[in-house]
Amino acid sequence: MMDYKLFDLGDVKLQSGMTIPDAKLAYKTYGELNAAKDNVIVYPTWYSGQHYENEWLIGAGKALDPDKYFIIVPNMLNNGLSSSPSNTPAPYDAARFPRVTAYDNVQLQWRLVTEAFGIEKIALVTGWSMGALQTYHWGAMYPDMVERILPFQGSAKCSRHNFVFLEGVKAALQADAAFLDGWYEKQPVKGLRAAARVYAGWGLSQKFYRDHMDLDALGYASLEDFLVSFWEGWLLAKDANNLLGMLWTWQNGDISHNPLFGGDLVKALSAIKAKAIVMPSSTDLYFPVADNEFEVKHMPNAELRVVETSWGHFAGGPGTSPDDIEVLDQALKELLAS
Amino acid sequence: MMDYKLFDLGDVKLQSGMTIPDAKLAYKTYGELNAAKDNVIVYPTWYSGQHYENEWLIGAGKALDPDKYFIIVPNMLNNGLSSSPSNTPAPYDAARFPRVTAYDNVQLQWRLVTEAFGIEKIALVTGWSMGALQTYHWGAMYPDMVERILPFQGSAKCSRHNFVFLEGVKAALQADAAFLDGWYEKQPVKGLRAAARVYAGWGLSQKFYRDHMDLDALGYASLEDFLVSFWEGWLLAKDANNLLGMLWTWQNGDISHNPLFGGDLVKALSAIKAKAIVMPSSTDLYFPVADNEFEVKHMPNAELRVVETSWGHFAGGPGTSPDDIEVLDQALKELLAS
Repeated sequence: MMDYKLFDLGDVKLQSGMTIPDAKLAYKTYGELNAAKDNVIVYPTWYSGQHYENEWLIGAGKALDPDKYFIIVPNMLNNGLSSSPSNTPAPYDAARFPRVTAYDNVQLQWRLVTEAFGIEKIALVTGWSMGALQTYHWGAMYPDMVERILPFQGSAKCSRHNFVFLEGVKAALQADAAFLDGWYEKQPVKGLRAAARVYAGWGLSQKFYRDHMDLDALGYASLEDFLVSFWEGWLLAKDANNLLGMLWTWQNGDISHNPLFGGDLVKALSAIKAKAIVMPSSTDLYFPVADNEFEVKHMPNAELRVVETSWGHFAGGPGTSPDDIEVLDQALKELLAS
Repeated sequence: MMDYKLFDLGDVKLQSGMTIPDAKLAYKTYGELNAAKDNVIVYPTWYSGQHYENEWLIGAGKALDPDKYFIIVPNMLNNGLSSSPSNTPAPYDAARFPRVTAYDNVQLQWRLVTEAFGIEKIALVTGWSMGALQTYHWGAMYPDMVERILPFQGSAKCSRHNFVFLEGVKAALQADAAFLDGWYEKQPVKGLRAAARVYAGWGLSQKFYRDHMDLDALGYASLEDFLVSFWEGWLLAKDANNLLGMLWTWQNGDISHNPLFGGDLVKALSAIKAKAIVMPSSTDLYFPVADNEFEVKHMPNAELRVVETSWGHFAGGPGTSPDDIEVLDQALKELLAS
């Protein structure tokens, strides 16, 4: 039984000039929309994640409390639930699924929010990693609608170094001949495992590994156990074309790469009216603090708040670091109360 | 015409319990051994590097001046010139070439230095990256022979994070079915290219890429040009089994993992009598400063001197960053004068 809904988008024209026919946006809501329609939180998904993998921040007593807020989690295109290589019929299936930008994603999320629910104001947009990328897009694309944003461990534009990290992940996956240029019938498991191993060094920090947190905090039996179970297990559960589709979205993420801002990043950052708290992790290897520093400098109403942690990119991530998530939750509460 | 010599090692028994029959150590010397035999510098090679790829630090007027010093560059086993998967006859060829530790390497280098040249004192051992790993081994294994060491951008023991980074490189290479478990007749070029792309994010720093130093300092036309030419070009010139052999040596590098120290890293570090300057790069992603800090704390006669740079692992590396190499050369001169 499906625990989410599908919003019919019709035929969707993308920034790339291609069309997804009969496109679907999968989403799940938590809590009730109040009569004033002023209790809305939008919380987009991260790389590979599906809506239920966003739930670690949602719950009674937390900032994202369904007793108070109407929380919408839209699934990113390419994630296997919204329109994706894995669920789209020919001719746009598999390796032919069109490239989708974060701008495309957020335009479609805006249609869900306005057309399905008649919402005009959003109290908060927040998200982790690629969810943060979409959060920045919401702020820049709909500045009069979005009152607050809290992007964590992400950026408004994919940095060149981040792009290179992702080239490594992609090349490892595609080195597997079983990938068959995307026309596989069975998943390229060797490539998925290799991509996961590449990711493992990036996702957490040097200090995380130095301090044996894979063993002591996460409870794995050995480093190899952690690599197989946590990392390979993660990507083996996903579809290769979907992953590569989201990877393209990530590599090409840029809030200014659209008709609104014509590639002018400073202009796009300056357009974000929302009150913002931007929360990088002190040890994130691919979203380093310096990238957010630049952004915050150009956002009119933003504060940079660095999370001091050994958890690298996984500081506020999916439930792994309770201490950092507590810090994040407090910041979300503070922002929502302001 | 060969610009190097081969030292016959005979049948060599390794730490692994395996034997390399009729093993060879390739080396090149620069300058003349003086009568007192007290002007010796040993300068081991780095991951993938061959002796001529160590030459950026050698020259008249430099610290490593062949007019003053007798500089021996021993090629690491597995590097294609010393005994390696690519040049050893069956049954120890290709995927069956035995695993070699840094301890094995340095024992064999010691035989070269003592048996071929009758040297009893070494003024300096220095090296970059895996060359630094061998440098630490020299200091710990032959404390009464080695007067000075200067390891740069390397460590005495492969950290767990560094190990994971290398897992990614290895998995990317081996994801290519053309690797054939090491029994290829043609190099697995797709895997080599993938491994190179994985390496590209690690070798330099986030700031290097942010500041477009691939374009502005190194002169590439685009990021993709840099990835293809610099990175893929690097690994395509090498043999896959050789690379995996050296990678194993690196992952298992540990100055204490031998009968002298029984796995006690502090004991091994404490055994290094040589006057030492240890030079990490402030932005090295896989040999972070913190690992060297720990080491220096336990070395009786060592100074930690961080190179402030955007060049990541390539600070003192093969000729790419002249400013950092000048800092390194000055430190080498200072150490040699002491």
